Amino acid sequence: MYKKEIKVLDCTVRDGGLMNNWQFSDDFVRAVYNACVQSGVDYMEIGYLSSAEAFDPKVVGPWKFCHDKDLRRIVGDNKTSLKLSAMADIGRINLDDIPHADDSVLDMVRVACYVHQVDKAVELAHHCMDKGYEVSINLMAVSKVNEHDLDEALVDIAKSRVPIFYAVDSFGSMFSESIQYLVRKYKDALPGKEIGIHAHNNMQLAMSNTITSIQEGCTMLDATMLGMGRGAGNCPLEILVAFLKNPKYRLLPILQTIQDHIHPLQSSIDWGYHIPYLITGALNEHPRSSLAWMDSERKNDFVAFMKEMHDYA
Amino acid sequence: MYKKEIKVLDCTVRDGGLMNNWQFSDDFVRAVYNACVQSGVDYMEIGYLSSAEAFDPKVVGPWKFCHDKDLRRIVGDNKTSLKLSAMADIGRINLDDIPHADDSVLDMVRVACYVHQVDKAVELAHHCMDKGYEVSINLMAVSKVNEHDLDEALVDIAKSRVPIFYAVDSFGSMFSESIQYLVRKYKDALPGKEIGIHAHNNMQLAMSNTITSIQEGCTMLDATMLGMGRGAGNCPLEILVAFLKNPKYRLLPILQTIQDHIHPLQSSIDWGYHIPYLITGALNEHPRSSLAWMDSERKNDFVAFMKEMHDYA
Repeated sequence: MYKKEIKVLDCTVRDGGLMNNWQFSDDFVRAVYNACVQSGVDYMEIGYLSSAEAFDPKVVGPWKFCHDKDLRRIVGDNKTSLKLSAMADIGRINLDDIPHADDSVLDMVRVACYVHQVDKAVELAHHCMDKGYEVSINLMAVSKVNEHDLDEALVDIAKSRVPIFYAVDSFGSMFSESIQYLVRKYKDALPGKEIGIHAHNNMQLAMSNTITSIQEGCTMLDATMLGMGRGAGNCPLEILVAFLKNPKYRLLPILQTIQDHIHPLQSSIDWGYHIPYLITGALNEHPRSSLAWMDSERKNDFVAFMKEMHDYA
Repeated sequence: MYKKEIKVLDCTVRDGGLMNNWQFSDDFVRAVYNACVQSGVDYMEIGYLSSAEAFDPKVVGPWKFCHDKDLRRIVGDNKTSLKLSAMADIGRINLDDIPHADDSVLDMVRVACYVHQVDKAVELAHHCMDKGYEVSINLMAVSKVNEHDLDEALVDIAKSRVPIFYAVDSFGSMFSESIQYLVRKYKDALPGKEIGIHAHNNMQLAMSNTITSIQEGCTMLDATMLGMGRGAGNCPLEILVAFLKNPKYRLLPILQTIQDHIHPLQSSIDWGYHIPYLITGALNEHPRSSLAWMDSERKNDFVAFMKEMHDYA
């Protein structure tokens, strides 16, 4: 499965932070950073770019904002081959709050959007490109988008200058055939652009969907250590690196950080494969109801959750 | 993914028993049985057929032997549409100890063998067929078998009367391309025979390898509740049933038994995705070293295990 174009992006802190409001210690973020540097991972997504008024800093940790001073406390000037990324949600960041890339330790901004926000996403993406960043657009929740709306969005993306576009299985509802269909559609509609994959693990298919995406020509691969991420989590970075057998990556530094920092968190944060996440994934529903269930006293009453979802679905 | 030929085989007790020496309570086995009956699963593999002298009954539970009296204590005369299976290992069962199918509540015997045992497996399989059982041969550890030996074995299987042959990913080292290659090889070499799939989850690919197998024409699908099985475990039955969306299967009875009986066991038995199992899977090694590691005080020292395996591999 060696392809030299492949780039791996660790988003442990960004996606994992959805489970704890980005309340990570500096030690934790530094350990993830060091593992990424030492393992040869290409990108680390360290959080979100958000404006101060969008979230309460008493509720969410610094990685929801990615202020340059917080980043540099961890990475210094990042004189390494690892590139740093932050995600930007439409409507959560004022353009004026985004520093020029020369004044930031970030290398990349990934713009996340829903299909009705594609025009805004292109505008934000172009703004970030003009400020000197590498940029992608990550279209979320595509498994719920009707084909006509998706085709229209792809026309807009094709016309844009944005060089990278992501296939995102937000609900963890897709499998090999649907991933293959989606990636082929993106490749066909977006000649010359790079395609990425961001998979969720509700049906334990995140790793295999990532493999399918590689086979279909995706070159930007998202993963997180021990699959840490919202709900069922993501494609596990350690499996991806073990699978790729690419000489530019090393597994041991990732295992060290998993052992010291990620695995211990599993006793207090319920990411990963759990039945409620399976149920929303299999039903192609947003994980919010399963996340709420897993936060409740009834988290292990799988039958009640299934019955509730069946009424709803 | 609807195919009417598909049959699902639950092997929770048989494969799960590898983790606790088949020391299940009758309540547990009965709950798995009831869930299989109520969910419309086609087969339940309730244990191994072994001769009394092969194992110490003080060490292993009754499901390592599958004496008819023990089976009937759980299933009565099994007047249901669920068929019952037991696995037989070469050298662990005397032919004379296998009752005629008319005198047994079992419907099927699955003969497990390594490649050098194929002739013995065919002999045992024919013996069981002649006694009135449905029979399969499950060739284990095929990911370590060289192509020439495998081709010779397939010639012998093709000449046999045994109607079902299993693709078994014993080490959890295979992915879509290798599964596709193997199943196509089996289909080509064994015209007219039914092919089954038994996958392990070391690289979180058991579910997707099962999907790939369906796409390639496998019709006997092994799975276990919550993936319970040796080491990283198996294809999770609840994901498979949720995925298949086949009207003959029902998810709720499976979730009920997972909730009441399987999930609680996870606090004391370490099946499922764990880093040591990933490491043996990625290295295409037998899980015995990872099982021993997970049983030791150092179970969470992933780096030490990786270093040890790298010296070994």
